This record gives sequence, structure tokens and C-alpha cells, in this order.
Amino acid sequence: MKIYDFPTGPYPTRVRIALAEKRLQSRVRFVMVDLYKGEHKRPEFIATKNYSGTLPVLELDDGTCIGECTAITEYLDTLDGQPTLTGRTPRDKGIIHMMSKRAEIELLDAVSVYFHHGTPGLGPHVEVSQNPEWGFRQRDKAVRGMRYFDAVLSRQPYVAGEAFSMADITVIGGLLFASLVALPVPEECEALRSWYARMLQRESVRDQPAFAGSAAVAD
Amino acid sequence: MKIYDFPTGPYPTRVRIALAEKRLQSRVRFVMVDLYKGEHKRPEFIATKNYSGTLPVLELDDGTCIGECTAITEYLDTLDGQPTLTGRTPRDKGIIHMMSKRAEIELLDAVSVYFHHGTPGLGPHVEVSQNPEWGFRQRDKAVRGMRYFDAVLSRQPYVAGEAFSMADITVIGGLLFASLVALPVPEECEALRSWYARMLQRESVRDQPAFAGSAAVAD
Repeated sequence: MKIYDFPTGPYPTRVRIALAEKRLQSRVRFVMVDLYKGEHKRPEFIATKNYSGTLPVLELDDGTCIGECTAITEYLDTLDGQPTLTGRTPRDKGIIHMMSKRAEIELLDAVSVYFHHGTPGLGPHVEVSQNPEWGFRQRDKAVRGMRYFDAVLSRQPYVAGEAFSMADITVIGGLLFASLVALPVPEECEALRSWYARMLQRESVRDQPAFAGSAAVAD
Repeated sequence: MKIYDFPTGPYPTRVRIALAEKRLQSRVRFVMVDLYKGEHKRPEFIATKNYSGTLPVLELDDGTCIGECTAITEYLDTLDGQPTLTGRTPRDKGIIHMMSKRAEIELLDAVSVYFHHGTPGLGPHVEVSQNPEWGFRQRDKAVRGMRYFDAVLSRQPYVAGEAFSMADITVIGGLLFASLVALPVPEECEALRSWYARMLQRESVRDQPAFAGSAAVAD
């Protein structure tokens, strides 16, 4: 398998964590796609790898390309018939998918829109049409999302309940992206901060290129 | 089980179609939430049913609430251990989740943003802070999305390949929403139009309240 990747990107990092959790890294070859050069927006990439022009993309040996972190995680997590990240029972699957999607809508995707529309983003060659008002609105939504996940994590040890799952990975991606755009977790969000410090010590997380020097991120 | 629902809404219709495909309608009680009165944005609904303030929401008999169509569909589709909408093999799961998410990003969610930001939407009591520029941009993205899915469906009978799946349901939701905001499928998108006409004849689809008088939508 190949993964089209940008090693420190928040979305690619989600799939890198899933690979590490499943101990599948050795079966994957990473192919660098330079986000800052806009390589993910080039017509050939869009036509042959991912219509949406985003990373990461998993390419199977038969040439099939699978985009979207949730879809790639579903693929990787069920390869061995022993899903550990996406749930086994209908109830667990439902809750994990809900919380992961909620982490995208309310946190990670909101920070991403802020980055691309409310900051210089990937630079003027890539960010050709910004909408700052929308960007700032999404920044505020992301901070509300942090407070929501803080409340969730004050009641339970992981984002989707009693076990680590894809939903934790999505919130990790959100807080990673927030740290990249200097959007701090509010001081009073103690449960979220404590959970994140635990996550940054987890082997599958701490070894990622995005978390080199992660102690600073946790503080 | 209960479903918090607005019978003609594009997102609730996705779950209604999934229920019909799985022949689970008789196990569900529908509870009406009036979108035009903003009942889905009220503090109590957000605090107890769905933080994101959207429909539909599935409430299990133990009180657990599951929002997000993909999550609800995962739950319903795996209740009997015989998934027919979300895939059985890792490859099928990956492709179905990718195509369903792509149908959200490139079509359904884009039309939704256009509705809420580029038209009067649910009215001034609900649409308290619009961003028309973003709305119009998403409208144009949705039309590009239609052309993309037309190309997909010119190569294969269903959105994710050879079988009907959750991804078809998401595109159906997108075209339903597009018809509600008078955003027609371009004439030249013959494969998409022909697929949609087939979908509107499917029992799980044609019986939905949203498609009463659906011949007009197909034309």
C-alpha cells in the first residue's frame, strides 16, 4: 500500500496514528505531497488520486485510491477482522462514528477552515480565494468545540466512552491543528488538557513527526 | 428506538431510506422536530439530544442519542450482523465511506450551506448570521459535484461500485436538497440523471414523504 502524505499535517497524522495502533506501518510506503506547493490541488492529483484535493490518500496495490481519514481508518481497522478503532457492536460503531464526525465538524474541520480562510494558510499561491469572516466564525466554533469535548472528557476517559477509538484520533488531530494555528485550549478545560497530555504519551501518537517536541504542545 | 425527525428533510430522509432498506421502520417511533421553528437549535435539544443541533438523531431505548447520518446508518446496518449498506470487506467499507463522505463534502453539505447562507433558508428566526459569499461559493461547488458524480456513474451502476450502498443514499440526499433549492442537475449529466430516476423508483426511496410527487423531481 502507498499513502500520499504530508508527515506533519493534522489529517495525515490521523492515519499515521491509526497505522501505528494497528502496527501496519511496515506495510505502507509513504509518498510525499507538498501541501505548501499546492501539489494536492494539481489537476493530475485530483483526477487520479482524490477528487477533493486533500491528504491523506491510501492507494491499494490494485491502484484503488481511498481518500478521507474515516474511510481509510475503516479499511485499516478491518484488515485483520479485529477492529479496535471503529467498534465491534452496532452501539459502539454508532457512537464512535458520531463522535469522530462531531470532532471533525466542531473542532478539526473548523480549525482547518480558520487556517485556510482566517490566516495566510498555505500561502497566496494555494489560498486563492479566502473568506475571512467565515474563517473567524469557524475559529470561534472550534473554541466552543474544545469546551464541549472538555465536558465529554470530564465524564469518561475517552472521547467515545471507555476505550481509545477513531474518535480520540480525530480530536487529537483537532488539537494538533489548533496548536499549529496558535489557538490554545482554554485554561479551564482541565479534562481536555489532561486527556491530551495522556494521548501525547501514547506510543502511536508521540512517535509521529507532528509531535516532535510535543511537550510544548501539551503545555 | 426513537428518531428525532423532520419527515421531508434531506438528512432525515437519508436515515428513513436506510431504515426502509433494512426493513426496520416498525421498530422506530418518529418524533417531529420542527426545523422551521428552530426546535433543533433550542438549548435543551442541544444539551440532551445532539450538540451539533442537527437532525436526525436516533435515541436508543437506554437513552443513548446517536447523531450524524453515517453513524446512525452504521448502527442500523450492523444490528442484524448482515451489513448491506456499509460494506463487508475492508475494501468495500473504505470505498463506501469515502464516496459517502465525498457526497457530503462535494454535494449535500455544499447545497445545505447554500440553503442556509445563500437563500432565506429556514427564515430570519433561525438564520441569524448568514454569509452569502460562502453560500454562493458552495452552490457552485455542488454543481461541480454533480458533474463529478455524473462521471462516476457513467462508469459504474452505483456510487460506490456494483451495489447499492450508503453512498447512493447520500447522493440521493444531495439531489433531493438541490431540488428543494431549485438547483437543477445540468442537462448534460445524463448518467447522474438516469441513476437518479432509477433511485426514485426504488421502494425504499419512492415511499418517503420527501418524494411525494417525485416524478417532477426526476424530470
